[in-house]
Amino acid sequence: MPVKPLPFGKAQAQQIAAQYPTPFYLYDAAGIRRCVRALHQAFAWNKGYKEYFAVKALPNPAILRLLKEEGCGVDCASYTELLLAERLDLVGDAIMFSSNDTPAEEFAYARRLGAIVNLDDISHIEYLERHGGLPGAICCRYNPGAFSLDRNAIMGDLHDSKFGMTYDQLIEAMRILKAKGVQRFGLHAMLISCALDEGYYAALAEKMFLLALDIREQTGVTVSFIDLSGGIGIPYRPHEAPVDIARVGKAVRAVYERLVAPAGLEISLFSELGRFITGPYGYLVSTVLHEKHTHKDYIGLDATACNLMRPAIYGAYHHITALGKEDAPCTHTYDVTGSLCENNDKFAVDRMLPRLEAGDIVAIHDAGAHGYSMGYNYNGKLRCAELLLEEDGSVTLIRRAETPADYFATLDTSGLFGDLK
Amino acid sequence: MPVKPLPFGKAQAQQIAAQYPTPFYLYDAAGIRRCVRALHQAFAWNKGYKEYFAVKALPNPAILRLLKEEGCGVDCASYTELLLAERLDLVGDAIMFSSNDTPAEEFAYARRLGAIVNLDDISHIEYLERHGGLPGAICCRYNPGAFSLDRNAIMGDLHDSKFGMTYDQLIEAMRILKAKGVQRFGLHAMLISCALDEGYYAALAEKMFLLALDIREQTGVTVSFIDLSGGIGIPYRPHEAPVDIARVGKAVRAVYERLVAPAGLEISLFSELGRFITGPYGYLVSTVLHEKHTHKDYIGLDATACNLMRPAIYGAYHHITALGKEDAPCTHTYDVTGSLCENNDKFAVDRMLPRLEAGDIVAIHDAGAHGYSMGYNYNGKLRCAELLLEEDGSVTLIRRAETPADYFATLDTSGLFGDLK
Repeated sequence: MPVKPLPFGKAQAQQIAAQYPTPFYLYDAAGIRRCVRALHQAFAWNKGYKEYFAVKALPNPAILRLLKEEGCGVDCASYTELLLAERLDLVGDAIMFSSNDTPAEEFAYARRLGAIVNLDDISHIEYLERHGGLPGAICCRYNPGAFSLDRNAIMGDLHDSKFGMTYDQLIEAMRILKAKGVQRFGLHAMLISCALDEGYYAALAEKMFLLALDIREQTGVTVSFIDLSGGIGIPYRPHEAPVDIARVGKAVRAVYERLVAPAGLEISLFSELGRFITGPYGYLVSTVLHEKHTHKDYIGLDATACNLMRPAIYGAYHHITALGKEDAPCTHTYDVTGSLCENNDKFAVDRMLPRLEAGDIVAIHDAGAHGYSMGYNYNGKLRCAELLLEEDGSVTLIRRAETPADYFATLDTSGLFGDLK
Repeated sequence: MPVKPLPFGKAQAQQIAAQYPTPFYLYDAAGIRRCVRALHQAFAWNKGYKEYFAVKALPNPAILRLLKEEGCGVDCASYTELLLAERLDLVGDAIMFSSNDTPAEEFAYARRLGAIVNLDDISHIEYLERHGGLPGAICCRYNPGAFSLDRNAIMGDLHDSKFGMTYDQLIEAMRILKAKGVQRFGLHAMLISCALDEGYYAALAEKMFLLALDIREQTGVTVSFIDLSGGIGIPYRPHEAPVDIARVGKAVRAVYERLVAPAGLEISLFSELGRFITGPYGYLVSTVLHEKHTHKDYIGLDATACNLMRPAIYGAYHHITALGKEDAPCTHTYDVTGSLCENNDKFAVDRMLPRLEAGDIVAIHDAGAHGYSMGYNYNGKLRCAELLLEEDGSVTLIRRAETPADYFATLDTSGLFGDLK
């Protein structure tokens, strides 16, 4: 199985666990940097290309700081995400505020920070005018309804998607924004999620470039940036191949040179990748607490769905490596569980693994995006620490584990928990 | 539609919202008390009957205090749930510690509090001995694998369930525990979840009574309590009828008098209801922020799946009432959404409702269990306040809303957020 080798082994995991008890998240700084550099390389041909990291994927300031060093901006979708950006001095054009059903105070905050605003609905033009005012650079999100990306035979239907504007609304929005004096115009669309098809971005770009030409013809508005959003996936399963981002960049370039350059346009491309950048470089590290043999064989971890929800709610596959047993034959079939009082609290079902026993440490792969950030406190479980494996091999605590005091913090007026540390 | 009338109206909701901005949870104290009293009445015939409220359903101390006043104990499943019980002076036999894949420190804590311990696995006998010691009263959880509850034609299969012991293990566990000097023995099983079939408890009780007789015969152990656990559901949809708990109690009594009394046994019955007790008496109250008309018609609320996850992850139905429009005809078909960057962040899909507009306040029904407690912070959203509608009509804040300072609390060493209130 072509599973990417772990950037740490059993000895280091044990050493870390002695200081920061499992479970914890461990992020591989070198891997994240490599990924971003490859992304930037792939789109270096495009003047103004910028990656706006989707904060929701991994909202940790240490990660965002690392990404800022690499030249990334941030895609923010809420008040606290804007606050996080501001504290890291990521402001102005470094923020793409891509939200929907947006509260007034969030538009106002985004405007105070000078963010580029991505409008999800035509009615938000007036709403934003009232709550913060229209910015100089504005982007509109497109929802094509049913679509086909012909070159890839990707077909889909966003009729049930709450996001974006219809074609007619988009044209109308451009006219209105132009009349209101907006200077820089952008387009945004996200058609699919977690695509491993390397043609996706090129096919989306073609659709958006044609739309930009259409808009120029119909409204006189010149689109100067196109946000291809997220949607590039990662291989969760061992037999899946990772997306070759250099090929993606090359394919988008070919479309650009065919459609955009001849039309005398210059369009900067943006992306809002999250999962692609941090997903493969985060591990949930957990210790086996129990083995249980009833109608099936179970391995019980000290992590639960509260740490990583995707397997429980989506049935998502996350590869699991037993540290120190990387080369042992997978002779046992286990359900790997957490301790929630929910039968879906399983990290794996019928998974072939080496023989495991209490005390073994396992790494759950591809947990670097939508992992910690989707964590919760069901059953009163506390969320765990996040650690950064630095490029020199050292480990930095970048988020401490929750304590009971954190868990009970919003009950401060109850008078019951004031003494908790 | 036989929707239970709301215990509050538009005027009161507006008045509350002026002090505690929406979204918020509002729990109906009178409703919860009525429900518990009916439950106690239904099982008054059984000496020693006790309801251990499933804390995970609604882990708020004000609610637990109210339930304690009504004579309930607590079903705890984690460290913080035990801590919450201890702070409310719910200790000893007032705690049923029903957990699985249990960490050592939680067994030790449960033992320090004198809780009844419900063992999920035969291997936990030795584990508990090492971490806290065996208590005088112990319960074993049964997993029958495939089962039929004949009188109800309820059939099921728990082969894939991580919970409980097999029959053989249960018999063996009883022998071991007896040899180790345990004095009081109990049995626990939960076969189905959210059952609206009024025969479920009686069918389960029959199975468990027969098991108790079998255990006495095979091991000489006298089972003195049986924990029927949770599993009694609530009607989420308007056409569903609520469970008549008096009839449930009567049916269990008939089985008891047929099987237990003639065998010369006296068995106390326990339950671990959560949803049944608080589910129907909690409302998520939210304000309409936006209406949106694209390929479908959307109503955007200021609540999101972060406040109430069940519709997004289970596709669960929760009834929605537009306050002040209770009697208006349902002429419009809406998707009712939150603002998460996830298309599943919808409280309702294709729901017929009265015409709604920005500023309208809605109540999302049946959110009193597994609502707030399954809340999370995805997209950096903050969890909301919880309020108790007292029996005199006044409203008490029983959990404040999260602030950005709470959200960033575990980043205290980052030096970025120390000034936040």
